[in-house]
Amino acid sequence: MNKKEINFTKKTSLILEEIASKSQLKEGKEAVRNILREIYRHGTIGTKSLARKIHLPIPTIAAVRKELENAGLIDRVKKGAILTESGLRFVTKELGISFVNDLLCKTCGGTRIEFPHEFDDIIAKLKSFTVQRPSPNTSLDQAFGLPITALRRAYFMLQNDDLEGRKILLLGDDDFTSLAIALLDISTDITVLDIDTRLTDVIRKIADENNYQIKCYNHDLRKPIPEELVGQYDTIFTDPPYTVPGLELFLSRGIQALKKEIGRKVYLAYAHRAPNDLFDFQQVIVNHGLAIQETIPGFNLYEGAEMHGNTTALSVLVTTSNTRTIIENEYKEKIYTGEINPTTRIYSCLNNHLIRIGTTEKIKSIEKLKELGCPICGTKDSFTRVTKEKRE
Amino acid sequence: MNKKEINFTKKTSLILEEIASKSQLKEGKEAVRNILREIYRHGTIGTKSLARKIHLPIPTIAAVRKELENAGLIDRVKKGAILTESGLRFVTKELGISFVNDLLCKTCGGTRIEFPHEFDDIIAKLKSFTVQRPSPNTSLDQAFGLPITALRRAYFMLQNDDLEGRKILLLGDDDFTSLAIALLDISTDITVLDIDTRLTDVIRKIADENNYQIKCYNHDLRKPIPEELVGQYDTIFTDPPYTVPGLELFLSRGIQALKKEIGRKVYLAYAHRAPNDLFDFQQVIVNHGLAIQETIPGFNLYEGAEMHGNTTALSVLVTTSNTRTIIENEYKEKIYTGEINPTTRIYSCLNNHLIRIGTTEKIKSIEKLKELGCPICGTKDSFTRVTKEKRE
Repeated sequence: MNKKEINFTKKTSLILEEIASKSQLKEGKEAVRNILREIYRHGTIGTKSLARKIHLPIPTIAAVRKELENAGLIDRVKKGAILTESGLRFVTKELGISFVNDLLCKTCGGTRIEFPHEFDDIIAKLKSFTVQRPSPNTSLDQAFGLPITALRRAYFMLQNDDLEGRKILLLGDDDFTSLAIALLDISTDITVLDIDTRLTDVIRKIADENNYQIKCYNHDLRKPIPEELVGQYDTIFTDPPYTVPGLELFLSRGIQALKKEIGRKVYLAYAHRAPNDLFDFQQVIVNHGLAIQETIPGFNLYEGAEMHGNTTALSVLVTTSNTRTIIENEYKEKIYTGEINPTTRIYSCLNNHLIRIGTTEKIKSIEKLKELGCPICGTKDSFTRVTKEKRE
Repeated sequence: MNKKEINFTKKTSLILEEIASKSQLKEGKEAVRNILREIYRHGTIGTKSLARKIHLPIPTIAAVRKELENAGLIDRVKKGAILTESGLRFVTKELGISFVNDLLCKTCGGTRIEFPHEFDDIIAKLKSFTVQRPSPNTSLDQAFGLPITALRRAYFMLQNDDLEGRKILLLGDDDFTSLAIALLDISTDITVLDIDTRLTDVIRKIADENNYQIKCYNHDLRKPIPEELVGQYDTIFTDPPYTVPGLELFLSRGIQALKKEIGRKVYLAYAHRAPNDLFDFQQVIVNHGLAIQETIPGFNLYEGAEMHGNTTALSVLVTTSNTRTIIENEYKEKIYTGEINPTTRIYSCLNNHLIRIGTTEKIKSIEKLKELGCPICGTKDSFTRVTKEKRE
């Protein structure tokens, strides 16, 4: 291969910036540095692991990896990416990186929460529930959380005293967090609102079979919450659509449901994002008069949600005397990622057939493509991302 | 003692509210519930441990404890507080509390960061430095962080890639975080600004003796930062005065010192506070155009800083394209807690002598009183808080 040797006389940050811009990386040069650092730390590392560690989508990582290869900083080997000789020099001499230990706590995975001893039975039971979930409907921004994540959320809320003797409402529950809470067998009053009848049906069925007190409503949150739920709850849990209007809508509905007092809690899962997007997002929180008590990156892990590097953050928000709803009535605008940002991605199969994937296409996700196989030749592996089309 | 039995026909939340209001507890009924829950969990627990667990000042805990005693919910025993029979009934039946495990990760203490193996030598060396600190000047809001906290901050920044090959500035450094960073022996350019010459002198001396590259400036941040530091830094660490103007000033100065680009970091330690105060505080952050990437309650532990229950939170803020300074020129207003909120507390010694303590009094803190003893009879223990006077 005819790779050009990187020009180290160029300012280090310029080299990183150039790669970020060539790979259209919104997160900028810091994310490029971050990828190089993880490769250095691991010797070799696959794209999926990189995505999870760095909290970036797999296709984004793949794009940067390609540019790093073109720049002669990394090579591709069977297990993933590896630094070239000049890549190693760049990382250690120019970026000053030498420390290889991962200091994130291995006991809690950086989530702050440790599982108690009785954990094994509960997780086994929860897994027997989650296998009953229908396949995720990505047009509703569904991405199923791992059972361990649902359980950790439940223990986390318990630790923060937001479960015992509390009334808790889940705004959307494709992760079965309600069932994880019910499994803890503590005095909690649980309500689930979800737009997807497939989900409310399964949760209701499991609750009935196990005698859990979970009230299920099939409800589209674009409509105000049912009258009887207004001002009733102590604790809200939500993992809303990862868009600004989605956040705004779910927070407003959550605030409607909370008791009108200071100190009520909203547990909010959301995708890791570039600084400017994170700022927009936090302005929505502050505009609702909610204070951020805690934010833990990488708290939530998902099955195959490659869009967000399989992991999202969890924030604990608390009501203040400034807390207010912004959206009061029926909401008629778009809220889901696929509506707001309908991108089509083009993949190529082993035999070079091109396939369109996207929320507005016949095949909605790469997971679905892998399940169905290439529509032309039927092959099920080695799909490569070719490019991304943006629809206006 | 003539205690009145609590009237359980009253609404549970009213009982809690009544106790909160009688003990002038800003944090409201949730904090009262929290105290009862910790007593229930521990059987008996002392005031100091309660303060640390609940993130409230010791005098506040003591005031609530007194009201809980008056209400017949708790008794005082040698080891601390214990629930009475009716207190136990109230906690389990009315509040619905039964779970006793503490789920905060024991490995990392909920800080998310694990220490690597080489830790022992480093902490020993850091302790040999911190014993050289002069006694804290509380009129400058000094409260010395534990060596383990300084070290954990250093590892935390390292884990987040904010140390290696980075230029780091500490705005105030009574915790010797600069020396903890230097001890990691990685390629970092460290600068300290502190108003207290006693501290800059000791840090400079230790740095010279150990050949650490730490630049020390004796500087009052009410003045703009030295010209040569403007726009130079990748990472700021600060544990500013716990007042809104203090935060505003330190953030503005920090932003002045940071490189003008998206993705630069500010590590900010701050006291746990009631929801409304937390909200005011976060508005200052948002007004500076900074996004909150992470917030870990209880990250920082202090020596005898009873004012804040010995522990504060740590947030990681990131610059965006909205980031801006608010204070540009010399600042002439008050910033320290003692200036803004000059309270005098009255303590009584074993022999019932009354002593005034406060930032505007001869004896500034309870720690100092215990050190000096009662000015009348000289006794050094069993001081009880009598009341608090607010100066206008």
